[in-house]
This record gives sequence, C-alpha cells and structure tokens, in this order.
Amino acid sequence: MQQPDESQLIRDETGTQTLIGYVVDISDGEQGRCFLDIGPQHTNRHGVLHGGIAAAMLDNACGCTGSLTVDKTGRAPFLTVSMTTHFIAPGRAGRVWATGTIKGGGRSILYIDGELRHEDGTLIATATGVFKRVPQEKLT
Amino acid sequence: MQQPDESQLIRDETGTQTLIGYVVDISDGEQGRCFLDIGPQHTNRHGVLHGGIAAAMLDNACGCTGSLTVDKTGRAPFLTVSMTTHFIAPGRAGRVWATGTIKGGGRSILYIDGELRHEDGTLIATATGVFKRVPQEKLT
Amino acid sequence: MQQPDESQLIRDETGTQTLIGYVVDISDGEQGRCFLDIGPQHTNRHGVLHGGIAAAMLDNACGCTGSLTVDKTGRAPFLTVSMTTHFIAPGRAGRVWATGTIKGGGRSILYIDGELRHEDGTLIATATGVFKRVPQEKLT
Amino acid sequence: MQQPDESQLIRDETGTQTLIGYVVDISDGEQGRCFLDIGPQHTNRHGVLHGGIAAAMLDNACGCTGSLTVDKTGRAPFLTVSMTTHFIAPGRAGRVWATGTIKGGGRSILYIDGELRHEDGTLIATATGVFKRVPQEKLT
Repeated sequence: MQQPDESQLIRDETGTQTLIGYVVDISDGEQGRCFLDIGPQHTNRHGVLHGGIAAAMLDNACGCTGSLTVDKTGRAPFLTVSMTTHFIAPGRAGRVWATGTIKGGGRSILYIDGELRHEDGTLIATATGVFKRVPQEKLT
Repeated sequence: MQQPDESQLIRDETGTQTLIGYVVDISDGEQGRCFLDIGPQHTNRHGVLHGGIAAAMLDNACGCTGSLTVDKTGRAPFLTVSMTTHFIAPGRAGRVWATGTIKGGGRSILYIDGELRHEDGTLIATATGVFKRVPQEKLT
Repeated sequence: MQQPDESQLIRDETGTQTLIGYVVDISDGEQGRCFLDIGPQHTNRHGVLHGGIAAAMLDNACGCTGSLTVDKTGRAPFLTVSMTTHFIAPGRAGRVWATGTIKGGGRSILYIDGELRHEDGTLIATATGVFKRVPQEKLT
Repeated sequence: MQQPDESQLIRDETGTQTLIGYVVDISDGEQGRCFLDIGPQHTNRHGVLHGGIAAAMLDNACGCTGSLTVDKTGRAPFLTVSMTTHFIAPGRAGRVWATGTIKGGGRSILYIDGELRHEDGTLIATATGVFKRVPQEKLT
C-alpha cells in the first residue's frame, strides 16, 4: 500500500493515538485505514504485536470507516457497541495496516468488518464489529 | 478492591504494558486481574477510555487467568485465539479493574470471560475469549 | 430447576419453536429461560446437541430476557443484532436449559448474556449478545 | 447460484439436518455451502428466518469448509469452538445459501468466516468462527 498525502492522515487526534502512535488514513474515502510501525513498545510476552494494540487499530479503522459514511472528514463520531477479534498470525516487526469494510446496517447501527495485515500481506487479525452513530442531539 | 502486596503485582513485563501502564495482579491465585489509572493518554474521541485499551486490559486479565491454571506465577504462556468485547458504559477518570474467570475448556483450549469495572463498580466492558496454551515443546 | 406453572410457559409461538420443540419459560419474571428435551432430531455429526439448536435456544432465552424488561408477557419484540456463542461441552441426552441475564444497555440496545446448561448442571455453551428493541412505530 | 449435481449434495446426514431441511453442497471443493428453502417452520416472531436456523446453516457451511481442507468428502469431523453471528437483514421467503471461507489457522485450529445470502443476493447474516479438527485418535 502506498502512503497517502499528509493532508489525508489523522495524527495525534486522541490521547490513545498519540500514546500508541498509529496513523489514521482517510485517503480512500470509503475504507478507513490506519497503520503502525511496530516497535518494542507494542509487543506482548511472545515478542510480537500485543492483541490489545491490534484491537485498538482494528477498532479505529472500523470506526473511521463508519465515519466516512457520514462525511469525508472521517471524524463523525461513532461508538463501538461490540467487536470480535480473531488473532490469526503473529504481528512481527514492520508496518501493519488495519482496514475497515461496511457489511450492512441502517440509520443508527452499522456492521463493519476489519482486517489487520502486515505490509508483506500476512493476515494478522480480523475483526467484526457493531458500531452505533452518536445521535446529533447528544453532541451539542 | 484492596490493592495487593507488591510481590504479587507484575509491572512492565512487556513493551505494551509499560506503554499503557496497567498493572497485573496475581494475588487472587485464581482470577487474573489488572488495573489502570485512566489518564488523558488512554482516551478516545469521546474523552473516555479507548476501546483498544479496554481490550488490552481484558486480554491480559483473561490470559493471566489462564496462566494461573498452570502455576501460581501467572506467567505460563497462553495465546489469545479470539476475543469478543462488549462496550457497555464509558470508562471515566479513575482506576479500572479487569478480572478473568474460567468458564470451561480442557488440556489445550480454555474459555475465559472477563469484566472491566470502574472502581465505583460500574461495568464498563465484558469480554468472552478463547485462549490456547502454548505447547511446552514450542518454548524451548 | 423445577418446571413452572403451565400458564408461564410459551409453546409453539413461532414456526421454529414448533419445529425444534423448545419451551419458553417466563416464570422468573427477570431471566428469560427455555428448555428442550434433546432427541435424535437435535443432534449433529458427533451425536450430541447441534450448535445451531444450542444457538437457537440461547437466542430465545436472551431475547425473552430483553422482552421481560418491557413487560411481564415476555413477548415485547426484540431483534438480535449479534451473538457470540462458545461451545464448551457436548450436550448429551436429557433436558437442557438456556437462561438469559441482562449485563447493561439503555433505551434501544441491551447487552444480554446467556448460558445453556444440562439439567445435571454441566455448562454446554455460553452466549453474549447485542439486542435491539423494535421501535413501537414499526409495529403498527 | 446453480444447483449442483445430486452426488455432491449431502442430505439427512444428521438429525438436525433432517429436522431443519437444509442441504449441504460440497461441489465447490473448497467452500462448503448449504442451502435451505425457507418455510413457515423456519420463522421467528417477526415472520422471517429465525436466528437459530441462520446460525445452524452458517455453522454447517463453515464446518464443512473445514472438512474440505482434509479431503473432498466434506465429512472429516470438526468441532465448533466459537462462532459470532451478525444479523444484518431479515431472511425472507425463498432459498438462502450459506458459504464458508477459510481465513487462517494451522494444524488443529481453523478460522473460518461465513456468509448467509438470499438467492436475490441480499446479505442476511455473517459469521466468524473458530473450528477445531477432531484428532484422529479420538475417532477410533
């Protein structure tokens, strides 16, 4: 995957994003994505990507995919209702990408699936989640 | 919940643990637990605990609960096969505790559920996971 | 578990219920339950309770638990948004009971967990689901 | 989808299959599939396909997909460890097809996803499951 223009990357939007260091990419316009360069601060007991970091990335990529159904800023607020993550292969050093795909839903609830892949193509984890749009009246 | 003796707390075991700052507590001997004092570096777009941090804590508490079935060090290695997380209430500032409970399983696979609660008792998230013991021959 | 008064049992409410033969029990008033006497028509390749039948029972017990938050008829309509089922032990011949428990939620979404147990106490399967109340305006 | 040759259909293999009436189709050789003609005996309170029947079909299609990794009979035994089902759209009268796809795994555990679609193409439900091969020594 080619790295997009800096204007389409979201960095340091939240405390967690700054802490972990992943970058959200809205350049696709439909699929929310985020990438992370795995370092020693992202590893578990087995020396590979920690499941919680994998889950954080999948959650962000899927949530951002939901936001992109509202407008192109990728920032319209969605809540994660539930997420199931399958840990398929170890995430080794290098860059990993999480990508979201809308599977269905309606006005308030979206079903969004995610994949986390190493830049070499290896499928590290999948996610399948239920997301809920934050009603506008709650935002003001 | 009372904070246990320092000898039964595991700190900074992995890169992710140091980064996020949660503390694993094996004092119960059966239920693995971990706690975190939520700060701005753990929050999402809504200013509350990020789902990925919640998932990391639940994953650790459940995995540690699996390890405690092997020996009392809480460090016997387990892999997370899958985990479903339900995000039930926002995680606000303060200390949160994740706790694991064995639901079933056998020699190689364990079914472990987790709960993440604020110190005020609020249930923030639940998890239900499948964990796999790392075979001994793979460790040498 | 003692069998309740016939007036608190729901039989043959839907085509699927008649086909499979489970009985819904609203006598608890809070926890929806359903039971089934396992016969050869409920078995899989391994000669034990089929996962789909287990899922159907857990779905019904959880959905009924949601309905009981609305009124005591246990029939207020809820939709299953998602359900994760863990298959923990084989379901052998005899009576099995599914039971739902509310874990949280609000006006429109409920988080409901379920357990399926053999009458001898064995935990056969667990479920954790997201349920959505059918808005009243859609019912008329 | 075209209906395959009768020699590649599995009918009435288990009590549950006969009861519900779905047909397993191994003609693809890689993706296990099963189909069902929805009748009134498959419906829920809302008059559409019951979630338990949907789950049974997804479970079978995924399990059969696992079996096809062993040999072409589609009957090598697998156990369902866990399955998450998302209910995306109502299943209305007509034929529905469940299809499984391998996402990853190894010698003992397979990660298999499933889709349930109406013959008109509507995505009714998705599933993501963990399956475990039954060790040969347990079969004799």
